[in-house]
Amino acid sequence: MSIVAVGSIAFDSIASPSGRVENILGGSCTYFALAASYFTQVRIVAVVGEDFTAEHEDVFRKRGIDIRGIEHAKGKTFRWGGQYFENLNEAKTDFTELNVFEKFQPRIPPEYMDTEFLFLGNIHPSLQATVRREMNGVQLTGGDTMNYWIQKTPYELVQTLKLINVLLINDTESKMLAAERNLPRAAQKVLAMGPQALVIKHGEYGATIFFREGAFGIGRHPFRAPALPIEEVKDPTGAGDSFAGGFMGYIASQEQLNREVLKRALFYGGVMGSFAVERFGTEGLQELTREEIDGRFQVFRELTHLE
Amino acid sequence: MSIVAVGSIAFDSIASPSGRVENILGGSCTYFALAASYFTQVRIVAVVGEDFTAEHEDVFRKRGIDIRGIEHAKGKTFRWGGQYFENLNEAKTDFTELNVFEKFQPRIPPEYMDTEFLFLGNIHPSLQATVRREMNGVQLTGGDTMNYWIQKTPYELVQTLKLINVLLINDTESKMLAAERNLPRAAQKVLAMGPQALVIKHGEYGATIFFREGAFGIGRHPFRAPALPIEEVKDPTGAGDSFAGGFMGYIASQEQLNREVLKRALFYGGVMGSFAVERFGTEGLQELTREEIDGRFQVFRELTHLE
Repeated sequence: MSIVAVGSIAFDSIASPSGRVENILGGSCTYFALAASYFTQVRIVAVVGEDFTAEHEDVFRKRGIDIRGIEHAKGKTFRWGGQYFENLNEAKTDFTELNVFEKFQPRIPPEYMDTEFLFLGNIHPSLQATVRREMNGVQLTGGDTMNYWIQKTPYELVQTLKLINVLLINDTESKMLAAERNLPRAAQKVLAMGPQALVIKHGEYGATIFFREGAFGIGRHPFRAPALPIEEVKDPTGAGDSFAGGFMGYIASQEQLNREVLKRALFYGGVMGSFAVERFGTEGLQELTREEIDGRFQVFRELTHLE
Repeated sequence: MSIVAVGSIAFDSIASPSGRVENILGGSCTYFALAASYFTQVRIVAVVGEDFTAEHEDVFRKRGIDIRGIEHAKGKTFRWGGQYFENLNEAKTDFTELNVFEKFQPRIPPEYMDTEFLFLGNIHPSLQATVRREMNGVQLTGGDTMNYWIQKTPYELVQTLKLINVLLINDTESKMLAAERNLPRAAQKVLAMGPQALVIKHGEYGATIFFREGAFGIGRHPFRAPALPIEEVKDPTGAGDSFAGGFMGYIASQEQLNREVLKRALFYGGVMGSFAVERFGTEGLQELTREEIDGRFQVFRELTHLE
């Protein structure tokens, strides 16, 4: 099966205690697509500028990613610069140049219309809703959002949440969206807004999936997956998007959607996030094998499972 | 088998969003002993004042805890007052009255000398070391400490760490002790100071146990256990001590010490912590059954285990 991913392609300049890189390929859609590409056919919808070259295209092509949905606009590609200090959980943004991304209007190529899965990356909630309505044949829609939209466009976001089956956000975003400090209570409030499942990403502590009562016919008990304790996180950029890619990609690769698939998907999310942060930019996601991925899946299992 | 626990008995006055209590029985030794008492024979060493009544004694007696090591001193028992706001992870201390605890010199009753396990609660590292040296026949020693001792008595603490087999502290304490922000690297540095195993408690995200290479003959791969997502945490006081009680108590109840026992102990730590925070003070730990405990152990397993 296949998945359409809508989001950003960017050039990032990143400094961390492990080094510094300039204008490397990044963006939420890029991390998501690379991570998901090890599990399923990925088709992306994004916009780039004239500085996006054949070499950049090759990063997607080598992973068999369908890039017919990349719009080439006049101007420069979205650029972001940021630094991580000793606390790698938070980036200090140096600059954000939206460039061609500012006027991004996602256009779904007709060839994508038979796609079964959809992932709405972190863009304006109204754009997310438009894409979702256009692709009205999808089986399951995943989505992301961020503090900015929760604060600036709450009305639009609430409308969009009704169209999303699985929302993937972090602790802070969940609490802000629900206006509730207790995490499981926040989760229930977010689920009442529309999604059948909510994945809350805890960074270095892993992730929890909460289910709406009766969703997918699997009861509402949550499930927790760990993150790998990593001695050198070189670059945390894209960890959450890579998590989403592993999670959604694995789901799209399965015949059925049930509790066990969602649990395993949460593990694969953590696995792909762990590969992403071990190297700068998308390097850690470009040349994996399914054997390496499943090997790390076993490490995650041993990290958490009793005999 | 049995375990000696050294630490504080206190009267706590606590306010949280769920309510308020005054002068209720608390203290690290109390939470630890009650939690451990469901697994093994517990013998405590602590000091109380003249305000400690037969009714307070009964809380220990009902759980079969040996209180011959409670010293009754002239004056008042240690008192602590604190408040929790919406963020239940941090207490705001209103007052600390050390009272008889200020001059506490742990005295081990001769009847305790055949005990196989020892837990050194969060007291001055030199007192911890004295107790450990006195009880030189123990098989395994667990210990706790806190930011105060890390900053004020670093030399004494480093000496004591050489005498402790398993240290149980939280993320902040681990990073401070190791002077290192990355958690797995901090863990390795702490392990190099003496302990064979280090349990890092992550609060609502569970706990990780790290092993020194070759310790207990089990390799150095870490293991993670979850915490239960709880919709109403009434009173987080004593959660870490209850965790330690479940962890050490389970270990003391087992014939052998191996990787699997340590993994299960980490789960039982989380289980006892979850019971503690559901009610005020030690209420949640006073009248459990082993069936309830093992039922929740299964909930923890289902929360984390793939099929």
